[in-house]
Amino acid sequence: MDVSDAAWADRRARVILDPTVIQLNAGTCSPTPQPVFERVSELRRRQAASPTEFQWRDAWPMLQQSREALAGYLSGDPRNLALVENVTVAINIAAQSLELPPGAEILTSPYEYGSMLLLWKRLAAQRGWTVREAAFPKQIEQPRQILDAFAAAASDSTRLLFFSHVSSPTGLIFPAVELCRMARQHGWISVIDGAHAPGQIEVNLREIDADFYCANGHKWMMAPASVGFLHVSARQKRATRSIISSWGHGYLPHQADDEAFPGTSRWQYDLEFHGTADRTPQMVLPEVIGFRQSIGGDSAIRARVRHLTTRLRNHLRELNLRPFSPDDARLVGNLTAILLPEPFQQPGGFLASPADTPAARLQRRLWEHHRIECPVTHADGRTFLRISTGWFNTEQEIDRLALALRQELAA
Amino acid sequence: MDVSDAAWADRRARVILDPTVIQLNAGTCSPTPQPVFERVSELRRRQAASPTEFQWRDAWPMLQQSREALAGYLSGDPRNLALVENVTVAINIAAQSLELPPGAEILTSPYEYGSMLLLWKRLAAQRGWTVREAAFPKQIEQPRQILDAFAAAASDSTRLLFFSHVSSPTGLIFPAVELCRMARQHGWISVIDGAHAPGQIEVNLREIDADFYCANGHKWMMAPASVGFLHVSARQKRATRSIISSWGHGYLPHQADDEAFPGTSRWQYDLEFHGTADRTPQMVLPEVIGFRQSIGGDSAIRARVRHLTTRLRNHLRELNLRPFSPDDARLVGNLTAILLPEPFQQPGGFLASPADTPAARLQRRLWEHHRIECPVTHADGRTFLRISTGWFNTEQEIDRLALALRQELAA
Repeated sequence: MDVSDAAWADRRARVILDPTVIQLNAGTCSPTPQPVFERVSELRRRQAASPTEFQWRDAWPMLQQSREALAGYLSGDPRNLALVENVTVAINIAAQSLELPPGAEILTSPYEYGSMLLLWKRLAAQRGWTVREAAFPKQIEQPRQILDAFAAAASDSTRLLFFSHVSSPTGLIFPAVELCRMARQHGWISVIDGAHAPGQIEVNLREIDADFYCANGHKWMMAPASVGFLHVSARQKRATRSIISSWGHGYLPHQADDEAFPGTSRWQYDLEFHGTADRTPQMVLPEVIGFRQSIGGDSAIRARVRHLTTRLRNHLRELNLRPFSPDDARLVGNLTAILLPEPFQQPGGFLASPADTPAARLQRRLWEHHRIECPVTHADGRTFLRISTGWFNTEQEIDRLALALRQELAA
Repeated sequence: MDVSDAAWADRRARVILDPTVIQLNAGTCSPTPQPVFERVSELRRRQAASPTEFQWRDAWPMLQQSREALAGYLSGDPRNLALVENVTVAINIAAQSLELPPGAEILTSPYEYGSMLLLWKRLAAQRGWTVREAAFPKQIEQPRQILDAFAAAASDSTRLLFFSHVSSPTGLIFPAVELCRMARQHGWISVIDGAHAPGQIEVNLREIDADFYCANGHKWMMAPASVGFLHVSARQKRATRSIISSWGHGYLPHQADDEAFPGTSRWQYDLEFHGTADRTPQMVLPEVIGFRQSIGGDSAIRARVRHLTTRLRNHLRELNLRPFSPDDARLVGNLTAILLPEPFQQPGGFLASPADTPAARLQRRLWEHHRIECPVTHADGRTFLRISTGWFNTEQEIDRLALALRQELAA
């Protein structure tokens, strides 16, 4: 398979891109493929022209088609899927629905997304739970080490395992299947932050069998902004309720599998509908997935990304910069986190004021002087630069980043 | 001022409309003016092309301009405004932020929007509050009667007054200034559901001085879907927290008036930001308000709507149908609720299954046989047909509705 820029130029041309920007940040949000943007724009025009017709009648079958397309793509059950704004909302729903007793321990890793740690700490303070971060090795060479770290940290009070399928600050891939099996064996609830997984690595929701799998569509799947989802096991489905009260909250006796609208159960209606809102991005998942197939499918996309990350790793070696993970597809995919040299380390992590640290200045300089989008991240007391390589990025963009790093890290 | 269809045809032509649909339902969601749609589409294309640049840097000044435009339009304080998805979310934030003691009584009216009643009942059940609906006269001829009804219903346990500025099921306008004064005098918190007010009636947030004023942009202001807001008094501001935990929730010490981003306080960041989402509709309020001015401003719009509602009332008189409110601008604006004849009354209100009642069939027939969008509503044990007259509606559309009602209500 030809993974060169030349072979992928036509496919790149089908993505809406600002040619003046080097976007090595699909891990925050991807640019949108032209056919997806056209479809969501067409739906928005229909909504603008005849909003009641669109929202009351047309929306529900399209949302159902999106759930079915997504469930097919991720080997899940469309009846257990709720489409929500993003993974933050999805994890909030999962966490706030839990009825764990006081004293329950939430076991998590040092590599989670900061705002989700804030969520667990807030709930723990309100409800008398504790949050324990398992001690992880500084260097992970085998997925087994992740399982061992959680096993060693668990206690008699552990009731829930929360981890990222792909860690946001470091790109580390967690062995989700094995971790969820461990959780089931111990009777722990499993909640997965899958923000970075769909479209980056293969996700088989049936095989993972998490209690709650929460993720985003706008990162590696390249859906428009405002597409996230929650996939809930049959075990937890009935207890999972919306945070925002609207019509689904008590309108009629709550039967998870009763239909509220054709193809939409009362359970989905409760979780998804909170008054008039633009839900068109959640209706275009068939086009999002169809676009991926039209450019060769996920295995071609992964081969192309691997070509780019290999090029990046070669540059990093020359620059004496260390990637967080070894070059092992079980541990790392499209996100390459570089451990920043000592002067850029920010021991306070994300709680340090982001405006005036060397790490924050580095991120700003990459943007202002090089037009490169690339965030600084923090995890486990260390500071990283996180480089996202989307298939639409180019060899030249990787080379430009390497050049910029040579200038900025030497400075 | 010329209020005829002919005089308004050019202005109507600037709204995106499906010519095959008679939309007498701006009370649910308005069609979008072309210049507003063009602006939000342009922002969405920028977001699609360079999402990090747009969301991290460009979004915040535009959101601030929207807050300032909205605060100017409604005589509020932009620092006390949070832009959220819609009024349902806004009222949920207000209600869930409250720290009322068990036994506290929520005093409300029989004319509220059903899902908001479900919210208060859910919170009451969780927190030991009670919800009391004041008994209202069946026929209201004077704003004074509304004040009297609340005063008569209040008890020593009353702690909060919740009412609609304009009632969704009936179109009744509540005397918000006087009701909030009454609340302040008694030490009650005031929460207003202003979903239908901005763009329909004059809203002066400073004069009303509610603790929480919550509303929508997509109804009478004609903003795109996903524009709502919360305006919070200085008294309640510090206690008002987001329902969804994200970065704003504890990221840094919470100082309501500290800036998180230029022009955006930490308080606003907490309430508004919950991960990546399409917030472009909330960025176009300057264009929404500018469009209103470009077609003559609010007084011209109100004169035009009054022309249409007068025509509607003349038809209703001929059909022997009774509007809920007398023709008095202190009590009614763009929403005309018709008390439906006895066979269409639905004593179970919105809790009766909506699919198989005569009232629900009437709404369906209006759509399927006449292409008229017009919902059935329920309040205080009675069933209504609610007709929204937007300035973009036409005399002919009103006449077509009258003809349809003659057929359907006689059948």
